[in-house]
Order: sequence, then structure tokens, then C-alpha cells
Amino acid sequence: MSAPPLAAPQLPPGVPVVGMVGAGQLARMTQQAAIALGVHLRVLAVGAADCAAGVCSDVRLGGPRDLAAVQDFARGVDVLTFDHEHVPAALVADLERGGVVARPGSHALPYVQDKLQMRQRLAASGFPVPHWAVPRPGHELEDLRAFAADHHWPVVVKAVSGGYDGRGVWVVEDETAAARLVDALADLRWFVETHVAFRREVAVQVARSATGEIRAWPLVQTVQENGICTLVIAPAPQTDPEHAAHARTLAENIAKELDVVGLLAVEMFDTGGDEPFVVNELAMRPHNSGHWTMDGSVTSQFEQHLRAVLGWPLGDTSLRAPVTVMANLLGGSGVEAAAVHSRIPAALADPGVRLHLYNKQVKPGRKIGHVNVCDAEVDAAVQRAGTAVRILRGEDGSR
Amino acid sequence: MSAPPLAAPQLPPGVPVVGMVGAGQLARMTQQAAIALGVHLRVLAVGAADCAAGVCSDVRLGGPRDLAAVQDFARGVDVLTFDHEHVPAALVADLERGGVVARPGSHALPYVQDKLQMRQRLAASGFPVPHWAVPRPGHELEDLRAFAADHHWPVVVKAVSGGYDGRGVWVVEDETAAARLVDALADLRWFVETHVAFRREVAVQVARSATGEIRAWPLVQTVQENGICTLVIAPAPQTDPEHAAHARTLAENIAKELDVVGLLAVEMFDTGGDEPFVVNELAMRPHNSGHWTMDGSVTSQFEQHLRAVLGWPLGDTSLRAPVTVMANLLGGSGVEAAAVHSRIPAALADPGVRLHLYNKQVKPGRKIGHVNVCDAEVDAAVQRAGTAVRILRGEDGSR
Repeated sequence: MSAPPLAAPQLPPGVPVVGMVGAGQLARMTQQAAIALGVHLRVLAVGAADCAAGVCSDVRLGGPRDLAAVQDFARGVDVLTFDHEHVPAALVADLERGGVVARPGSHALPYVQDKLQMRQRLAASGFPVPHWAVPRPGHELEDLRAFAADHHWPVVVKAVSGGYDGRGVWVVEDETAAARLVDALADLRWFVETHVAFRREVAVQVARSATGEIRAWPLVQTVQENGICTLVIAPAPQTDPEHAAHARTLAENIAKELDVVGLLAVEMFDTGGDEPFVVNELAMRPHNSGHWTMDGSVTSQFEQHLRAVLGWPLGDTSLRAPVTVMANLLGGSGVEAAAVHSRIPAALADPGVRLHLYNKQVKPGRKIGHVNVCDAEVDAAVQRAGTAVRILRGEDGSR
Repeated sequence: MSAPPLAAPQLPPGVPVVGMVGAGQLARMTQQAAIALGVHLRVLAVGAADCAAGVCSDVRLGGPRDLAAVQDFARGVDVLTFDHEHVPAALVADLERGGVVARPGSHALPYVQDKLQMRQRLAASGFPVPHWAVPRPGHELEDLRAFAADHHWPVVVKAVSGGYDGRGVWVVEDETAAARLVDALADLRWFVETHVAFRREVAVQVARSATGEIRAWPLVQTVQENGICTLVIAPAPQTDPEHAAHARTLAENIAKELDVVGLLAVEMFDTGGDEPFVVNELAMRPHNSGHWTMDGSVTSQFEQHLRAVLGWPLGDTSLRAPVTVMANLLGGSGVEAAAVHSRIPAALADPGVRLHLYNKQVKPGRKIGHVNVCDAEVDAAVQRAGTAVRILRGEDGSR
């Protein structure tokens, strides 16, 4: 071979090494920020097709629940962090006892791995959450009915762990549906909560550095279809400035209360009332609701996460445009990887479309990319981002 | 090993592969753009310490003048492009005959590899260039003196090939200096040109896609010290709008005239007159004078270069802030890599400082990173960017 592959790059001394467990699109986009900051990103991938593996020089193979693999992976990293919630907090605690610096730490992770602990902790600390109840073993249906009687149908049943993108969440309309669901979930830990009547769904991303410094981005509106986020509008349109400020403070206080280091996404219901926000979900990492920051804010959530876990000062979270809209590109019928790539030139005909493709293996409903569009007007931004995504999906009628 | 290194990532079908010869900071920053666009970037590195090698999954080893190596490297890439000017145009022509798509192509590259050809071609096409003359072999000193007598001292002597960052360029003040230089350059091809009295130095970056589409960024001012660019101010302050428009048109016309595909940097003298611009240097790739685009424009020069060489539509080159200032971080005494990394938190205390570190082996005078600062005012942006660089260099008096 005249141009053989390089075995291993040689870094200058003093380069910080951040190890990220998981090699999905969040790790992939973190690499863009790591390159700018001069941070060396090492990722732990499950397989060669993990999409961050294609863009990093330092990829290790191993499962996120395999203590030996994660231990081996963490050797030599300055900070260990996560692209997902699948590393059990107990495993992280083991690593910490061995001297690994994990951010967020094992004391914070349970609140994103166990939704019941999250509800209990937030409620105990006075944060607004839906009413909820844990059914007694053997009395699940009875307790679910009693809860609905105390509140109202429908109710929401949530798996204690493992849910995301609408999985692990069931809206239960009536007694018949409740009976069916309770049967189906016989082997699962779950709890029930009120179905919050909301005007819209919103989110705040906040970063907390290892130094304690906190910075939040403005409140955004998130639009979900079938439990999957399809659109984010930043900032959330038609928002009372006091409410917007209150939402940021709420998110900052949760980050402090849970001693989060890194990014925290706080997904909330906006009920439209005087105290409009009710906390729905948390994520302790860069999150889909913050992808707009890559083009719409001075500092992206990925850069901020690295700065936070390294204990560096946080970057400016100001807006760079009056409106930024993020639209997700989901896999589906006719949305194979090669077809998507062939449609890029058509999608980029709008010169302001900011494309972010993940190079993931495509599955129906799977997030395989997103576009951001900055504009002066919400409607225009929504329309332009939607058009680009429809073109990439082959739904514009011409391709 | 519990978490063994991954041998090779697996990409989904249809992913475009761009091969970049050279693995310096331009390739490194191109990788950030490639990640977003879903483009697979393969780089040809000279050694394991090349700074793009640390951030790519597909690094091959070989020299840019080694036909077999570049041929092997180019196998399977959709487009071949360059991080520097060191691949001889004749070698690229050989590759093209073998079916490789090189952008810019072998017909365009001579104008950045041979400054005399560049001067001749631009002058023949009516573009403004300094007066110049090629000395006759054996009559070098005589011809240089005659040229100065026809114009004025000082004159500028330029090596026909190989110069950059002030190397290969000599300002000759008088006859004595001329005699010394002519002796010293006995083995080098050179020519002489007038020393243009300029108000300031400026540059325009322009992209030309394989489709023929052209987009330029606004005119910027470049500040050089010892022949090395230290500061770029975008847009160039206090510029007559007609002059600014004229500079863009000039750059666009050169890109067309030379049939450039990819990025073209046109460095010019601004003489302050009615037709103020005189072309100094060209580069056919992303260029230091365009680093400000990473934070100051909707589309960065690195993304634009990829879009251009892939024949995709070009992105919006609008400004994202009233002023963006780029300040280079140069290596020097006390500016070792580890020391620079230890000073990052202090430099980032200004939350609007956008850091770009290359993780290069540090040498005195070598560009090892840059910062961008966006602001409403030129003076403030210059001051903030300068402060960050001084802190990183350990020159702020406290570290």
C-alpha cells in the first residue's frame, strides 16, 4: 500500500481527554466542538456503525453496562461523560471509587435513569410536577382507577426506566384501556400521573460547570408528533418575558438542586396559566431540544457541555438570530441513507439551510439528522426548515 | 483489553467521500464542516503528529509529491482536494488522466504554485497587479537596478514558488541590499515587482462551485506582522460601499477567469485611491483570512469549500454580527502546547471568545490556533480578541 492507514495519531502534551460513553449523534456533534476547543474526544461505541465512530480518531468498543469495558475505556481520560442514560449510576459510582471523574456524577444520574426518583425528588424540593402515584403490587388496576377518579381521565402511565422518544409512556383514556395496559405491563415497573392539559410543550437547556457556574439558553417551544420531537422554535414565540425568565430560573435551580455538571435539558408543559410550567422530563446531556443552539446561539450546547464537564468558564448563550427553527429528519419509507444523500443539493438550494446529517443507519422513525434555519419571522423559519426536511425525505413531490 | 480500539468505522451507503491531501489545521477545521454535512473526510498526512490526524477516522500516510501515494489515497474518493499548495499540478494532471476528480483542477493550480504565472495571467486578463519584471539569467542585479530606476526603491523580490507566511518575499531598500540578495538567491527563480504603497491590506474569500455558482464574503482587512497575518477585521472598516462591492466582483472574476472550483482567497493592497485594489497573493483553498467566517458568517469557508468541490449549492455568506475579529495564536517562547492548554480557562473568561485550537506541535511563529470575537464595535472586538490571545500566550502579566 502506498498510502497506508495511520495506526494512531500523536497529540501534543497537555491536551485534555474527554471520554464519552456512547457514539451516537450527540457524540458525533460533540466532536465538532471538541475540535475547536482542542479537546481530544474518545468515544465508547457498541459497534462499527455507531455514527460518531466515523468522525473520531479514538474509538473503543464496549457496552455501556459492561463495567470492565467502561473501566478500561475510562483509563487515561480526564473526564468521563455520556451520550445517553444507559450507564447505570451504580456502575458510575464504582468508577468514581476507582478515581474516575464522571460528569454528571453517580449522585445525579439516578434522576434521569429512574423517572420515579426524579418525580419524588423534584416534588420534595418544591418544583412543579404533575400529580403522580405508585400502584401497590397486586393492586395496579385498582390504584390506577382510584388515581383517575381523584383526578381525571385520561391519565399517563410511565415506565420507571428505559423510555425515550415516546417509548415507555402511555396515555390511558378510560377503564377499558387501563385494564388492557395493566395486563400488558405486568413485568414492568411503572407509575401513573395526571395528563397535564397544556397550551404547548417547552424546554430549557441549562449548563452547569464543575466550577458551579450556570448558564441557561432562552426558553424554546418543542413540537412532538407521536411522542417524537419534530420541531423546535427558539425562542418560544409569544412568551411573557416574566414567564420566560421564570422558566430559565426553574431550570437553573433544578441543575443546582440535583448537582448536575454538564448539560441539563428540562422539558416542561406550558399550561398557559399564571404559573404555567410543569416539569415533564429531564436529560443530563446535550439534547434534541438544544440542537438549534448549533446555529442559533453564540455557544452550542455541545461546546457548552465540554466546557462544563472540564470545569471551564461557560460560553455566551445569547441568540444569534431573532428566530431559529430546528426540524428533525426522521427515517421512513423512501428515506434510505443513499437517497437522502442524493437529495442534499436540492435541500441546500435555500442558502440559509443549516444541514446536520448524522450518517446513521436509517430506520423508520429514527432521527438521522436535522436542519436549522435562522430567520426574522417564526412562520418563515418553520416553513423553510420544513421544506428542507421534506425534500430530504423525498416528499416534495418532485423527487 | 476490555474496550479494544475499533479497526474501521462502517458508513451507511451513499456517503460522499472527500479526500484532502494534507492534514494540517485547514483539514482539521474542514472536518468540523464535513461532520455536519454528512461528508466522509479522508486525509493524507505526512506523519502521526499532523493535527487533522487526531480528529479523523480515515487517515492515510504519504507525501504530497509522491504520485503512488496520492494515487493510492485518491482511490475511492468522490473528489480530491487540498489543504495546501504542495501537490504539483503535473501530478494532479496525471491523476485526472486516471479518472480522479480534483478540485481545484490541474489547470487552475499553477496560478497558486507559480507566482510568476499568476502575475502574467492576471495582468493579461486585465486584473490590477503590481508592475513586475523577470531578470535575465546572468543579468539579475543589473535588471533589478533598472527596474528600481524605472519605478522606485524599495522593490519587492519574490520567489517564483514555495513562499508563504512572509517566506519567499524580500523588500529590497537600496542597491547595496539588492547586491547582497541577488548573491544569496543565486539558486532560486525569482522576479521583482514594485513595492505598492498601501493604506492597508485586505482580502476577499470567494467560493466557486463545480456548478459554476459563485459566492463571495465581504471584504476584510488583514493585519500582518513580519509577513504573518495576526488579525483580520470583517468587514473591512471604513470602506466605501462601492469599493467593497468592486472588491467582491474582482475576486469573483478571478475565480471565473482561472476556473477555480473550491475556495479562492484574493489578498490585495488597498491603495486608498479611486481604483484602490491591487492583487497581491492568491490561495485556492480555505485561508487564514477566512477563519472569521466560522463564527461571523452564516456559512463557514470550510463548509463552503466542501459544498463547492462536491458541486452542491453554496451557502449564505452574510455576516452574523456587525464586526468579527479573528486573531491568530502564534507559537513562541513560553507558548508550549501544555502551557497554552492550561491557560484556556482564563482566555474563556470572556464568554463571547470563540476558541479554535489546532493541537499542533508548537514552534515559534507557527500558527497554532485562533480566536474569533463578534461585537458591535471594531475597537472592542480587536481588544477582546487580542486579550484572549495574549492570555493564551502567557503575556497578560499574571500567568
